[in-house]
Amino acid sequence: MAASSSVSLQTVVSRAVAGGHGSPSPSHPDHLSLPAGFRLSSIAGKGVRSLSSSRTGVRRTGPAKVRAAAVETLEGKAGTTALVEKSVNTIRFLAIDAVEKANSGHPGLPMGCAPMGHILYDEVMRYNPKNPYWFNRDRFILSAGHGCMLQYALLHLAGYDSVQEEDLKAFRQWGSRTPGHPENFETTGVEVTTGLLLELSCGSPLGQGIANAVGLALSEKHLAARFNKPDNEIVDHYTYVIVGDGCQMEGISNEACSLAGHWGLGKLIAFYDDNHISIDGDTEIAFTEDVSARFDALGWHTIWVKNGNTGYDDIRAAIKEAKAVKDKPTLIKVTTTIGYGSPNKANSYSVHGSALGAKEVEATRSNLGWPYEPFHVPDDVKSHWSRHVPDGAVLEAEWNAKFAEYEKKYKEDAEALKGIISGEFPAGWEKALPTYTPESPGDATRNLSQQCLNALVKVLPGLLGGSADLASSNMTLLKMYGDFQKDTPEERNVRFGVREHGMGAICNGIALHSPGLIPYCATFFVFTDYMRAAMRISALCEAGVIYVMTHDSIGLGEDGPTHQPIEHLLSFRAMPNILMLRPADGNETAGAYKVAVLNRKRPSILALSRQKLPQLPGTSIEGVEKGGYVISDNSTGNKPDLILISTGSELEIAAKAADELRKEGKSVRVVSLVSWELFDEQSDEYKESVFPAAVTARVSIEAGVTLGWEKFVGSKGKAIGIDRFGASAPAGKIYKEFGITAENVIATAKSL
Amino acid sequence: MAASSSVSLQTVVSRAVAGGHGSPSPSHPDHLSLPAGFRLSSIAGKGVRSLSSSRTGVRRTGPAKVRAAAVETLEGKAGTTALVEKSVNTIRFLAIDAVEKANSGHPGLPMGCAPMGHILYDEVMRYNPKNPYWFNRDRFILSAGHGCMLQYALLHLAGYDSVQEEDLKAFRQWGSRTPGHPENFETTGVEVTTGLLLELSCGSPLGQGIANAVGLALSEKHLAARFNKPDNEIVDHYTYVIVGDGCQMEGISNEACSLAGHWGLGKLIAFYDDNHISIDGDTEIAFTEDVSARFDALGWHTIWVKNGNTGYDDIRAAIKEAKAVKDKPTLIKVTTTIGYGSPNKANSYSVHGSALGAKEVEATRSNLGWPYEPFHVPDDVKSHWSRHVPDGAVLEAEWNAKFAEYEKKYKEDAEALKGIISGEFPAGWEKALPTYTPESPGDATRNLSQQCLNALVKVLPGLLGGSADLASSNMTLLKMYGDFQKDTPEERNVRFGVREHGMGAICNGIALHSPGLIPYCATFFVFTDYMRAAMRISALCEAGVIYVMTHDSIGLGEDGPTHQPIEHLLSFRAMPNILMLRPADGNETAGAYKVAVLNRKRPSILALSRQKLPQLPGTSIEGVEKGGYVISDNSTGNKPDLILISTGSELEIAAKAADELRKEGKSVRVVSLVSWELFDEQSDEYKESVFPAAVTARVSIEAGVTLGWEKFVGSKGKAIGIDRFGASAPAGKIYKEFGITAENVIATAKSL
Repeated sequence: MAASSSVSLQTVVSRAVAGGHGSPSPSHPDHLSLPAGFRLSSIAGKGVRSLSSSRTGVRRTGPAKVRAAAVETLEGKAGTTALVEKSVNTIRFLAIDAVEKANSGHPGLPMGCAPMGHILYDEVMRYNPKNPYWFNRDRFILSAGHGCMLQYALLHLAGYDSVQEEDLKAFRQWGSRTPGHPENFETTGVEVTTGLLLELSCGSPLGQGIANAVGLALSEKHLAARFNKPDNEIVDHYTYVIVGDGCQMEGISNEACSLAGHWGLGKLIAFYDDNHISIDGDTEIAFTEDVSARFDALGWHTIWVKNGNTGYDDIRAAIKEAKAVKDKPTLIKVTTTIGYGSPNKANSYSVHGSALGAKEVEATRSNLGWPYEPFHVPDDVKSHWSRHVPDGAVLEAEWNAKFAEYEKKYKEDAEALKGIISGEFPAGWEKALPTYTPESPGDATRNLSQQCLNALVKVLPGLLGGSADLASSNMTLLKMYGDFQKDTPEERNVRFGVREHGMGAICNGIALHSPGLIPYCATFFVFTDYMRAAMRISALCEAGVIYVMTHDSIGLGEDGPTHQPIEHLLSFRAMPNILMLRPADGNETAGAYKVAVLNRKRPSILALSRQKLPQLPGTSIEGVEKGGYVISDNSTGNKPDLILISTGSELEIAAKAADELRKEGKSVRVVSLVSWELFDEQSDEYKESVFPAAVTARVSIEAGVTLGWEKFVGSKGKAIGIDRFGASAPAGKIYKEFGITAENVIATAKSL
Repeated sequence: MAASSSVSLQTVVSRAVAGGHGSPSPSHPDHLSLPAGFRLSSIAGKGVRSLSSSRTGVRRTGPAKVRAAAVETLEGKAGTTALVEKSVNTIRFLAIDAVEKANSGHPGLPMGCAPMGHILYDEVMRYNPKNPYWFNRDRFILSAGHGCMLQYALLHLAGYDSVQEEDLKAFRQWGSRTPGHPENFETTGVEVTTGLLLELSCGSPLGQGIANAVGLALSEKHLAARFNKPDNEIVDHYTYVIVGDGCQMEGISNEACSLAGHWGLGKLIAFYDDNHISIDGDTEIAFTEDVSARFDALGWHTIWVKNGNTGYDDIRAAIKEAKAVKDKPTLIKVTTTIGYGSPNKANSYSVHGSALGAKEVEATRSNLGWPYEPFHVPDDVKSHWSRHVPDGAVLEAEWNAKFAEYEKKYKEDAEALKGIISGEFPAGWEKALPTYTPESPGDATRNLSQQCLNALVKVLPGLLGGSADLASSNMTLLKMYGDFQKDTPEERNVRFGVREHGMGAICNGIALHSPGLIPYCATFFVFTDYMRAAMRISALCEAGVIYVMTHDSIGLGEDGPTHQPIEHLLSFRAMPNILMLRPADGNETAGAYKVAVLNRKRPSILALSRQKLPQLPGTSIEGVEKGGYVISDNSTGNKPDLILISTGSELEIAAKAADELRKEGKSVRVVSLVSWELFDEQSDEYKESVFPAAVTARVSIEAGVTLGWEKFVGSKGKAIGIDRFGASAPAGKIYKEFGITAENVIATAKSL
């Protein structure tokens, strides 16, 4: 979208707001900018609420004037150079002081990046400090997450409630709102979570943040293409990110940036903090590539700011140029001095990850002419920054007015967009899920998964996703839609290429963009090994990504051990806050999708078969929601002779074995344990109803490691599984050779 | 090293061989080229064995003439263009026929890459088909491992015993020597393993192969710098690799190639099979970057062969140019047509991963003028390729003679190099490991690890490695040595930069280069998530890499949950063929290193503490070797009241709790379960001696997930651990908040 048309539109809206809606902007606007759970329907159409300026405690100027400063960035209102310098030093010393007090942390990056941070937050970015969830805000990610004191200092100056002086003083302490690396889940109060993230995402593990930023920029481009109208560009924001040398070395950043170039994400602007220092010393020891040339090759526009320490105008000019290039993302290489201002430690690795020490802090104070006490924000700096609270309120109010206009003219689109913004699903959405009877034809769960995705996309406006070059194997294509591409960004099939790690992190960015965006992504289950770090970040930052992982066992056959997952089910069952689901047939696959869609703060992994499976009697969506349930039983009084436990493609084998044993007069229960995590959350009573403590004759069967199954089969039961790597052969042959058969289940059961 | 000087040296040796040693070259030379286990000392000095030419069944020409063909590549002996074309088509049809017979596989890549494959194996590479382990062979890796029928066809033509016609016919079948993706561990016989790998490494998961190749080329450069002499360049080979579009998209390849450029690995030559097709269709949908420009930026020399289908001379010229550039690795982009020759499927994704089908096979036969039966190798092609068996024998014999000269003049270096080639360690090496008493000062196990590494490097000539930009945190620097760099490749500290995934795969390449090379690599334990795919490949292809993983729990403190491993111990305990070791103090750290060094076919992960730990009474190297053992016990008759089980940094807590409980009159056993895998391998008798079945009162304590501990604490015991993400605070505070304390152990024990 053209920035010029954006500005003129904003002007139109601004006038409309000033002329027709009275005082705009609440100080805590809880409008469309709120996260999931807030009932949109109850506020739609109420119009703009009046401003209670006393709540902010800041005198406001008129909205038009405010906009000039906040929106028409880079012009006027920037403050004198002396004031900018003072503000920049304030940022530096807030970082220095917080790290010093914690005696732990990374002062070097904030000291070097303070100028670009200042310009972004004070002059360029559009945001509302009192509602960090405002939908149309510019996004900012600190990919070099260890430098998070930069972000905390900026949020503090900008007036975010989440980072008060006492929070800066509690940096890296138990229960504080300023943890050691940016997190978006420290929820000692909604306002806090709000304050510290969405923008930050979970930047810390290097390279994740830039990939998250690609996901944010993708989301903006997609939503803008779907919802903007010639007379109302309701979606319109930039995504800014600061990446360090470490991020640039990580492969994930190359993956994500290759896609960003391919997609032409023109509103993604990355600052590369080129400070030549990493933990082990000068980057010369391991990193001598030409980063800018690499980004040129990836299809980015590149700019070099040679003096990032004091070249304020150069930084401003670079941002202006970046915004003018609309068909490519921009990398602004900003050469800085790590630990700028520290006379003895600047430009050395010693300033990267340790407190400066009292002596050097004093030397830095003296060197930069900083006479203030720790944590002090000079009055003129405070006063200069104070405009962001009222300005932000105006920005959001203007946008709300714009949305009200939009809603009047484009009712249906507005409804869909509201759903995406709020995370509210249309009532009865789950009825779209297919159901099956034992008479329904058998099918691979990867195919059943595709039926679910294509059913859900009709009722969930925020569902989009794709595969890492395996769409035709993972069965993830949405048939109603084309490909999300540079020139067709309104489409919903995303082609990630063979870039699993980048894919996962991009999906985290999509999920964090708006509560109603539901990204899914796919590859072979074994290749979760390529993207595990991104998946853990999904879990940690509560991004409800749906991981569609097919070819989930030796059942994939000939591709052999490099493609056959063995330990993967257990390895994810062990990961906190992620749901590992392994459905056995159509009903269970539908159930898995229901769970995955509902869990917006917990990612889900669906392990799906390549091979055809029968529709089993007794399976159900409701059963899946409990994690484990009885699919068949011929016992009475909760006292079967034997319990067979299984998941996914082996549930059929357990059912067959049970049939045989029942013919021999045994009472046998078959339990589908589709999600251990969900089962763990059930009541003790329910658990006892499935696994009565008195019944110790238990056999599990799963085409994966037996480790962990002791939890369910107990000391007297037996686990059938695979405790070695797989093999290359047709699937049936491997199953037989590995003893994953009904015969083996029967023999094992009899041995108990 | 200069290729010209190499050639002249070879000539000198060749003359020496021809003049002084009689008929050189055994057909199965089991010299220095053999893997670990062969006793070098018994053959050193025996000189060159006589050739039994009847064993090869091939008439040999004189050695000098043979060398002209095999070594002075690219000149003469290449065969007429008609014969080359016929050979190339032979390769194509062997691939087509094998995939057709298996009705599964990937014919497209072999059909497109057959020309470069032919030129490499027939005209360029130096190898000995009858001894694939020959140390100084050129290495070849097919990074696009799905195209492995290319490799199988080439090995077949070249005369490797491991790929006979019947092996091609058993492609992708149970127990065959030609599995679905190249593997180096299919050991139905040593000759077989031999045949199929070291060169291939485990190329299949995309991007791994190119990173392995970087490791092979690093090894060559390092060993050449350490051992070559002005008059005897005993180490001198190239590393060739074919990468596809998929490899290029994976972040790991950018990581590894950035390092290859940084290190100036001039003898690494990569062919980029630029065929514009990936599984999901044209690469246009997800991959539009300028790959060659990216490699230029990474510091590579780049060449473009525009007609890879029939431009034989262009391919030859490119290789010649690549060899002439000695200070940079070379990327030769070879534009090919996937499925070349198939009239209806060439240049489409349908030829990537499926059999052509009988009809299209016939059409392709007709199109390429191929009248032969399936699997047929025409006589003139067979005859042309037949020279490689005798030529290879000569090459190795010449090298053996050269080594004999080397040994005479440079006894000490020869001894070290022999150890590296054979994998034999000097007698008594393990005595170098430090030992500790309870009175020794306490220390973090990461520091104790550094003591071990620095002790071992004095006795193990093949030990080298480093960290992903955390050397000063992981404590992995070898103090006697400098950095392995472009201009100091003889040094042994490798600086990987922040590239965990590339680091792991490069170490796999180092381990696979020579049995006596022992690579170690390091990062924070939580970042194994970034490199898990490479670690699984270590396990799968039996590369004994040592993973030094520090900051192994919440004990790292302030860096917070993004840096605190929780599920990682269990996730690796579940992975086949990898040892997860978590030592508790100095003796256990030394024991872990002993185990890791001895396990050359099984990688080891050492989880090490950031924080200081005491030297505990009762720990021992021998105990570690058993995986689990009793460190203290006040019971008699193998009947303690209670068994406390722990690992690593929590063993101290278990020991403290035991002391308290013993004061109260209880008989308590404390077990260190440092490696579950090693313990599993002990006899039932030993296991019973540690965990008597009759004692069900058991409590485990470990700062990680409790899942899996049911295996040891049983249905009646309790596991203390952490089943959530960590937190940002000083370590002691987090331990207390999470209940990882002696008080909690005591309370839990009393509740049983």
